[in-house]
Amino acid sequence: MGKLVYFFGNGEAEGDAKQRDLLGGKGANLAEMTNLGIPVPPGFTIATDVCEAYYSNNKQHPAGLKEEVEANLARLEQVMGKKLGDPEDPLLVSVRSGAAVSMPGMMETVLNLGLNDRAVEGLAKKSGNPRFAYDAYRRFIQMFGNVVMGVPAEHFEQELEKLKKKRGVKEDTELTAEDLKGLVKTFKGIYSKHTKKPFPQDPKEQLWAAIDAVLESWNSPKAVKYRSIHSIRGLKGTAVNVQAMVFGNYGNDSGTGVCFSRDPSTGENKFYGEYLINAQGEDVVAGIRTPEKISQLEKKNPEVYRQLLEIKNRLESHFKDMQDIEFTIQQGKLYILQTRTGKRTGPAAVKMAVDMVNEGLITKEQAVKRIDPEQLNQLFHPQVDAKAKKSATLLAKGLNASPGAASGQIVFTAEDAEAWAADKKSVILVRKETSPEDIGGMHAAKGILTATGGMTSHAAVVARGMGRPCVAGCKDITVSGKTMRVKGKTFKEGDYITIDGNTGEVFEGSLKLIQPKLSEEYHTLMSWVDEIRLEATREGVMEKGFRVRTNADTPYDAKVAREFGAEGIGLCRTEHMFFEEGKLVIFQEMIVAEDSEARKKALRKLLPLQKKDFVGIFKEMHGLPVTIRLLDPPLHEFVPKTKAEIRELAQTLGVSPARLEEKVHSLHEFNPMLGHRGCRLGITYPEIYDMQVEAIITAACEVATKGIQVIPEIMFPLVGTVKEMALLKERAERIIQEIFQKKKTRVDYKIGSMIELPRAAIIANKLTPLVDFFSFGTNDLTQCVYGYSRDDVGTFLPVYLEQNILEEDPFKSLDQEGVGELVRMAAESSKKVKPEIKLGICGEHGGDPKSIDFCYRVGMNYVSCSPYRVPVARLAAAQAVLQSKMK
Amino acid sequence: MGKLVYFFGNGEAEGDAKQRDLLGGKGANLAEMTNLGIPVPPGFTIATDVCEAYYSNNKQHPAGLKEEVEANLARLEQVMGKKLGDPEDPLLVSVRSGAAVSMPGMMETVLNLGLNDRAVEGLAKKSGNPRFAYDAYRRFIQMFGNVVMGVPAEHFEQELEKLKKKRGVKEDTELTAEDLKGLVKTFKGIYSKHTKKPFPQDPKEQLWAAIDAVLESWNSPKAVKYRSIHSIRGLKGTAVNVQAMVFGNYGNDSGTGVCFSRDPSTGENKFYGEYLINAQGEDVVAGIRTPEKISQLEKKNPEVYRQLLEIKNRLESHFKDMQDIEFTIQQGKLYILQTRTGKRTGPAAVKMAVDMVNEGLITKEQAVKRIDPEQLNQLFHPQVDAKAKKSATLLAKGLNASPGAASGQIVFTAEDAEAWAADKKSVILVRKETSPEDIGGMHAAKGILTATGGMTSHAAVVARGMGRPCVAGCKDITVSGKTMRVKGKTFKEGDYITIDGNTGEVFEGSLKLIQPKLSEEYHTLMSWVDEIRLEATREGVMEKGFRVRTNADTPYDAKVAREFGAEGIGLCRTEHMFFEEGKLVIFQEMIVAEDSEARKKALRKLLPLQKKDFVGIFKEMHGLPVTIRLLDPPLHEFVPKTKAEIRELAQTLGVSPARLEEKVHSLHEFNPMLGHRGCRLGITYPEIYDMQVEAIITAACEVATKGIQVIPEIMFPLVGTVKEMALLKERAERIIQEIFQKKKTRVDYKIGSMIELPRAAIIANKLTPLVDFFSFGTNDLTQCVYGYSRDDVGTFLPVYLEQNILEEDPFKSLDQEGVGELVRMAAESSKKVKPEIKLGICGEHGGDPKSIDFCYRVGMNYVSCSPYRVPVARLAAAQAVLQSKMK
Repeated sequence: MGKLVYFFGNGEAEGDAKQRDLLGGKGANLAEMTNLGIPVPPGFTIATDVCEAYYSNNKQHPAGLKEEVEANLARLEQVMGKKLGDPEDPLLVSVRSGAAVSMPGMMETVLNLGLNDRAVEGLAKKSGNPRFAYDAYRRFIQMFGNVVMGVPAEHFEQELEKLKKKRGVKEDTELTAEDLKGLVKTFKGIYSKHTKKPFPQDPKEQLWAAIDAVLESWNSPKAVKYRSIHSIRGLKGTAVNVQAMVFGNYGNDSGTGVCFSRDPSTGENKFYGEYLINAQGEDVVAGIRTPEKISQLEKKNPEVYRQLLEIKNRLESHFKDMQDIEFTIQQGKLYILQTRTGKRTGPAAVKMAVDMVNEGLITKEQAVKRIDPEQLNQLFHPQVDAKAKKSATLLAKGLNASPGAASGQIVFTAEDAEAWAADKKSVILVRKETSPEDIGGMHAAKGILTATGGMTSHAAVVARGMGRPCVAGCKDITVSGKTMRVKGKTFKEGDYITIDGNTGEVFEGSLKLIQPKLSEEYHTLMSWVDEIRLEATREGVMEKGFRVRTNADTPYDAKVAREFGAEGIGLCRTEHMFFEEGKLVIFQEMIVAEDSEARKKALRKLLPLQKKDFVGIFKEMHGLPVTIRLLDPPLHEFVPKTKAEIRELAQTLGVSPARLEEKVHSLHEFNPMLGHRGCRLGITYPEIYDMQVEAIITAACEVATKGIQVIPEIMFPLVGTVKEMALLKERAERIIQEIFQKKKTRVDYKIGSMIELPRAAIIANKLTPLVDFFSFGTNDLTQCVYGYSRDDVGTFLPVYLEQNILEEDPFKSLDQEGVGELVRMAAESSKKVKPEIKLGICGEHGGDPKSIDFCYRVGMNYVSCSPYRVPVARLAAAQAVLQSKMK
Repeated sequence: MGKLVYFFGNGEAEGDAKQRDLLGGKGANLAEMTNLGIPVPPGFTIATDVCEAYYSNNKQHPAGLKEEVEANLARLEQVMGKKLGDPEDPLLVSVRSGAAVSMPGMMETVLNLGLNDRAVEGLAKKSGNPRFAYDAYRRFIQMFGNVVMGVPAEHFEQELEKLKKKRGVKEDTELTAEDLKGLVKTFKGIYSKHTKKPFPQDPKEQLWAAIDAVLESWNSPKAVKYRSIHSIRGLKGTAVNVQAMVFGNYGNDSGTGVCFSRDPSTGENKFYGEYLINAQGEDVVAGIRTPEKISQLEKKNPEVYRQLLEIKNRLESHFKDMQDIEFTIQQGKLYILQTRTGKRTGPAAVKMAVDMVNEGLITKEQAVKRIDPEQLNQLFHPQVDAKAKKSATLLAKGLNASPGAASGQIVFTAEDAEAWAADKKSVILVRKETSPEDIGGMHAAKGILTATGGMTSHAAVVARGMGRPCVAGCKDITVSGKTMRVKGKTFKEGDYITIDGNTGEVFEGSLKLIQPKLSEEYHTLMSWVDEIRLEATREGVMEKGFRVRTNADTPYDAKVAREFGAEGIGLCRTEHMFFEEGKLVIFQEMIVAEDSEARKKALRKLLPLQKKDFVGIFKEMHGLPVTIRLLDPPLHEFVPKTKAEIRELAQTLGVSPARLEEKVHSLHEFNPMLGHRGCRLGITYPEIYDMQVEAIITAACEVATKGIQVIPEIMFPLVGTVKEMALLKERAERIIQEIFQKKKTRVDYKIGSMIELPRAAIIANKLTPLVDFFSFGTNDLTQCVYGYSRDDVGTFLPVYLEQNILEEDPFKSLDQEGVGELVRMAAESSKKVKPEIKLGICGEHGGDPKSIDFCYRVGMNYVSCSPYRVPVARLAAAQAVLQSKMK
C-alpha cells in the first residue's frame, strides 16, 4: 500500500479535487481549496484505502498508518503552533468522515477532540473565555461518548435540560462557565457509568478511538441503507479528515452556516443559505434551532459577507457546478470547512444546467450528463390544483423545502411510513425533525412535514435528494407522540393532509393534484438530449440513433407517450384488450369451445372489435412503428375462479356449470409462468393468432387508405425454437398475403420475435434469418435466468438485498452479469447473421437508466418503457451515448 | 444433383454396401450382394436424394429422374431378355422402399408390376401355368389398388373369401385358373368403383404410380411414428428398389422364406429361419400362415438348403454381423432378395458380440460399439418366478418370440393399450396378429401375445426390437372382438395374465416376476466397457476416465447401484429422508416454528435421525464418493393440503388449526418451481443446512473411525450468484471445522454446487474458485432454458413432438443446441479457472446414451443416473469414448 495520509494547510496540499476516490469528496475538496488559497483550517486526510484495508483485514489498521498519522499530526501542530493536549494552549481537532460520494448525515463526526481535564484549563486561560472552554469540553464528552462509545445521546441531553430548568434559562448560551464546569463532571459520570471506564485523558487515545469510530460508521445500518437506496456501490470506504478546530461558538462575533451558490430548490442563480450566530457546526444541519437567512449576514458583518460571496463565486467557477459550502466565523474571521457539489431538486438541476450552458460555464454535453435521469421525474411532480386550494382549509405554512405536492395519511414514525407504504397506502411523514435513521420512512412517504429545521436541515436536504415534496420548519404545528396539533385541531395517525412543497402550505384533507407545466429549460435540455441520441453512431449498428419507444396498449396511452416524446410503440400487449367490456365474454366463449370450429366462431366475433383497437392505436402513432405482441398469458387468466362466478359465466355462455368448472380446472397449471402460454398457445390453437394477424393487417390497410402512415410490427412471444418461429411466420405471412390480395392494397410490415427465454437468446443466430427484429423481454428472461418467479420472489428477495447477496432487485435494473450476458450474446450473434436486424428491449428495464446504458452498449436500436418513463429514458439514452464516447 | 439411379445385376452393381445413406440399406446390400456373385434378381435403385428432393420441392420429381429410370429399365429389360408389358413374355418387377435405417413393415411394396390384360395372357402362355399368371395378376390389382390408390384391402379380401366359400375350398391354392380369371375381373370392378378410373393398362404408368406411392409412404403416419419411437432422424428419405420379380408361388417346387444367420432371440450361433412353400414374399412376414422351420428345407430340398447355408455364412463373414436374409425359390432355383443386419434381443446382442470377438470376427471395440445401450435393459428383464409357475394355471403355449416375462391386464387394441398405459396400468396386448399400425400400442404394452404368426412375424420382430416380451403364434387362443377364449375359458378386457417370452407360456393371473441371472457374456462385455471407460483420456480433462455414478437416497438404493457397477453416488437427495416415518412430523414442526430458536429445537431432534441415514449410505459406498445435496424442494411439499389433514397435524404438533392453516397458506406459491427453494431456503433458514452439514460430517467422522473409507461431497442446490455460494460455503466450513475440533478427527470432503440455473452456468467461471466440483442439474436447467414447467408440459409437448417442433422430449434427451450450449460454456469456462475441477451430471439425462455422449464431449468426469440405468450408462459411456476417438 502506498501513501496513506495527505496533508493540507498553509496554502498548499498534497492532494487535489481529482482524488475523490482516494481522499473522499470532503478531503479532496479541502485539499483543492487549500491550493486555491481559500481560508481552510489545516489538517490531514486518511485515505479511503485505509477503510478498505480495515474491513478486508479483520478491522486491523494497515501497516504504517500509525507512523503516518503521527508525522502528519506533528506537522499540523507545527503549522498551528499548538500541541494536542497541551495544558497551556491545546490544539483541538475535528475528526470527520467523507466518502467519494456525499452521504450527508450518514457517518460520524467528532468535534473538539484533544480536550481533557488539564487542556480545558489551558483553553480557558488562553481564550480568556472559560465558558466557551467548558462548553467545548462538555460537547466533546457528549459527542465522544455517543459516537465513539455508543452512550445514548439522550442521557447527556436530559442532564443539560435539567440544568437549564434548574437555572431557569432557555438557551444553552445562558449557562455560565461554572454551570458548564459542573456539567462536564456530570457528563464524565454518565460516560463512565455506561462504559465502565473513565473518560480518556490521553488525546492520542481519543484520536485513534475517533478515527476507528469514523471507519466503523461506514458500515452502520443507516449508511448501508442509504447506499442501498441511492445505489451507491463500488466505493472503497470513507476517508477520515482530521482538521484543526475553528469555533463558531466563541461568542456573538462568531457563527457557523451553510450556503449554496444557487437556489437548490428552483435552480435560480441567487446566493442562498443560512447561518447561526454563536453556534457550533452541526447545529445548522441538525435543524434544532431555526437559523437566519444568509442575507442577514450582509447587514451584521458586511466584510465577512463580501468575502463569502467572493469565495462562493470562485468555487462555483472553479468546480463548474453549484456548490454547497459550510463555513465558520471565529471572532470575525471566515473559514471554509467544506465545499461540495450541492444536492438539488429535479427542476433546479435542469434550470442550472441550461443556465450554465448559456453562461458559457459548461457544454451542452456536460449539462446532459450532469442530470440524474430519475430526478427528471420531479418535473412531472403533481401540483395542488389551484381551484381545489380555494375551498381548502389551510392549516399552516412552513418552509417550501422541497418542491411538488403530496397528499396522504399522516404517520409519525419512519417505521410506520414503511409499513403503511408496503400496504399501498399514500402517507405523509410528520416529524418534529427528521434524523438519518428516518431515511427509509422518508423514501416510503409521498411527502414530509417537519415542525422545526430550516432549508438546509436534514429533512430538507434528504427530501430534495429523493425528490419528495417537503414542508420544513412549520412552527405552527406541534408534534407529540402520534398526534399533531395545529390551530387547535388535533390530527391522528391515518388522517389526511396535503402539503405543497412549492409554497410551504399544509392543507387539511386530500386535495386534487394536477400535472405541472414544463419549463422552457426542460424543452431546451431535451432538444440537446434528442440531438445527441439521434445522431449517435456505433460500430456494428447499421441504423443511426438510439430511440425511445413506449409500452402502450390503448390509443390513450399511445397519445400520452407520444406527448412525452416516444418514437413508436415497442410493446402493445393485445391481451389487455380482451379484458375490456364486451370482449372478455367472447374470449371466454372461445376458451370454452370444444373444437377448432367453435373457437373460430367466437374469434370471428372478436375480429372486428380487435381491429378497431388497432385502428385507434395506428391513428395515434401515425408515422411511427407499432410493435404488436400476439396473445401471451395462459388462458386461465381469462376465466373466473370462484364457484359463483363460474355459475354466472356458465349461464351467460349457455354451458353447464359442471362442464365449465371442469374446463377451468383443466387450465390450472403448477407453474403457469412456465406453462401453456405465448406462442405455445398460438401453435396449439392457431385460430387465435390467425385472427390477431388478420385484425392487425386489416386495420393497417384501412388506416393506410385514409392517408395515415402505418408501420405494424407483428411480434411472437415466448419463442424458444426455430421451428416455432418458422411455423408461426409461415402462417402469418399466408394470412397477410391473402388480405393484401383481397383488399388489393398492401402496407409495409415487419415480423419478429421476443427474446425472453434463455433458449431463444442462445439460438438467436438461428432465429435471425426468420425475423426482421428481436425485442428482448427481459422480465421473463430474468425469471428464467435466475429461476425466480416474480410473483413469489417476496419470500426471499428482501433477505437477499439486505444481506447484499443481490446488489439490486434484478427485476428493477437489468442483471448485466447474468441476464445481460445472454442478451449480449444474442445481440452479437444475430447481428453477425443479419447486420440490419432491429433490436430493442420491452421489459421494465427499458425505463431504467443503467439498463438503458447497457442496451446502448450491446447495440440495441431502441428501448421501450411505460409512457411516463419516456423523458427519463430519453435522457438516459443520451447519457449512454455520451458515456460510450468517453471510452 | 448427381446420379439418381444405380443399376445392379449380372454380377456387378453401380453401388455397394457403404452407400446406405444414398441407396438405403436394402439397395446398398442388393448392390453389394450382386458384386459378391450372390444370386440376386437384377434391378435398379432410385437414390434417397430423390425422396429428399420430392419433399422439398412440393412433391415434384427432380430433373433427369425420368430419363435415368427409363435408361435403367431398358438395361434391366436387356439383362432379363424380357420387356415390361410384353404381351408374349412380360417382365414383372417389384417396387420396394428401403431407407438407410431399417424400418420393417413401415413403408410400401408393390409386387408383380407390369401385368395387364394382355401381358397376363403372355405370362400364362410362357409359364405354361395360367393359374399362376391369374393369381399374380389378381394379387397385383389388389396390391396396386391398396398401396397406390388407397382402396381398402378388405374389399378385395372379402371377394376372395366369398369365392373360396362358393367353391368350398379353404386355401387360395385350391382355386382354379378360371376362378382366378373371374376374380381378376371382380377386382378390376372394385378398383374402378373406388378410384372412378379403370385399372391402368400401361406398365410405365403403373411403374411411376408405384414409385410415387413408395415415396409417399416415407411420411405415412405409421412411418413417422416409428421413426419418432426409435429416434430415427436426419435421413434423406427412402430409396426405391425396382427389381425383376422371382416367384415363390410358382408351385410346390417354389417357396419363400426368411432366415437369420444366428438366433435373434438368444444369440446362439445356429441357423434359424422359416419358409412357406408356394407362397409369395409378404406371406411369411405378415404372419397369416404359420410357416415351417428352416430345418425342414434340408429334408425337402437339400441342395437349395446347402446353397442357402453357404450364402448365409458368406454374408455373415462379409458383413461381420448377424444377417436377416429374405430368399425365394423359384422352380428349385434360389434367389436372395434382401440381406440386412438382423434385429435381435438385448441378450442375443450381447452374446453374439462377445462370441464374434472370440471367433476373431470383430474387435472388442466393435463389440462394445455395436450394442444399443437401451437393449441392455432387456438383460435385466424380469422372469417368471419358478416357484410361482408351479402353482399357476398354464393356459397355452406359443412361440417364445421375444424374451422376458410380463404380467398385466389384457387389452385387445393398440389404442386401448396406449390409453390404459397412460393411466399407469400394466397391460398385455392380445391380438390375432399385429400390424404396423399397432406399434404405438406394442410400445405401451408390457408384453404382447398373438394367436397367429411365426418367429419372424411382425409381432415377433417388432417386440424383439422394442425389448417387449412376446409370445407369438399361440394357436390355442382365439381372439374375437374384446374377448379371448382359451381352453374353454373366456378372458375379457382387464383380466390378468402373465406371459413368458423365454418359454412361450401363457398363464392365468398375475404371477410373481424375479430378476434374471446375468450371463457370462454380459460380464465379459462389461469388463471391456469398463476398460475403455476408465482408460479414457481427454485434452483439458485432468483426471483419466469417464465414470458412472448413481442417484441414490437410501442405503438400499446405494447397494443395488453398486451391484450394477456404480462408482459412487452423484446425487443423494436429502429431502426424501424427511418424508420417512417419524421424520416428517419433526420436519413439519420445524416448518411451523415461529422463530429461529424453535426451528433449531426441531432440527436438533432431526439431527441424529439424519445422521443415521448418512451412516447407512456411507457404509454401503465404502471407498466411493457420495455427493449429498442439501434440502431442495419448497417447504409446502412437506405440509398437508386438506382441511382434515391440517386439523390432524395441528393436533399432533399442538398448534391451533387456524394458525397452521395460515402457515400452510403462506407457503403457497404461484410458480413453486421458481420459488423459495434450494439454497434460498438454506440462506433464509440457515439452521436447516447447518443441521444437514453437521449430520453429514458427524456421520462421516463416525464411520471413518470404524475403518470405512468415506468421501462426502456436500452440494448446494439452486445456486445462482457468487455471494450465495460464498455465504453457504463459509457457514458450512465453519461447522465442519468445529466438528473436526470437537471430534479430534477429520475426513476428506468436498464442497460444490449444482449448476441448474442458467445464471449459474453463465457465471460458472466466477463460482469456480469457491467449489471443488459442479454437478449439472439438467432437469431444472432444461425447465429454465426452455421456460417449460415439467409438471405442465403435457398441455403442449405432445403437439410439439407430433408437429416435429421438437425432435425429442428435452426432459428425456438433453437439448444439446440450447441447454447443452450453456453446459458446454460452463464446463469450458470453469476448467479455464480450475483445470482440476470435477464435473458431473445428475439430471435424468445422466442415464440417456446420447446425453452421456454429450457429457463426455464437454469434459465431464462422470454421469449419475438411477441405479437400474447404471449398466446402460456404463456401456453408453464406453461408446462415447470410442465415438470421440473416431473424430
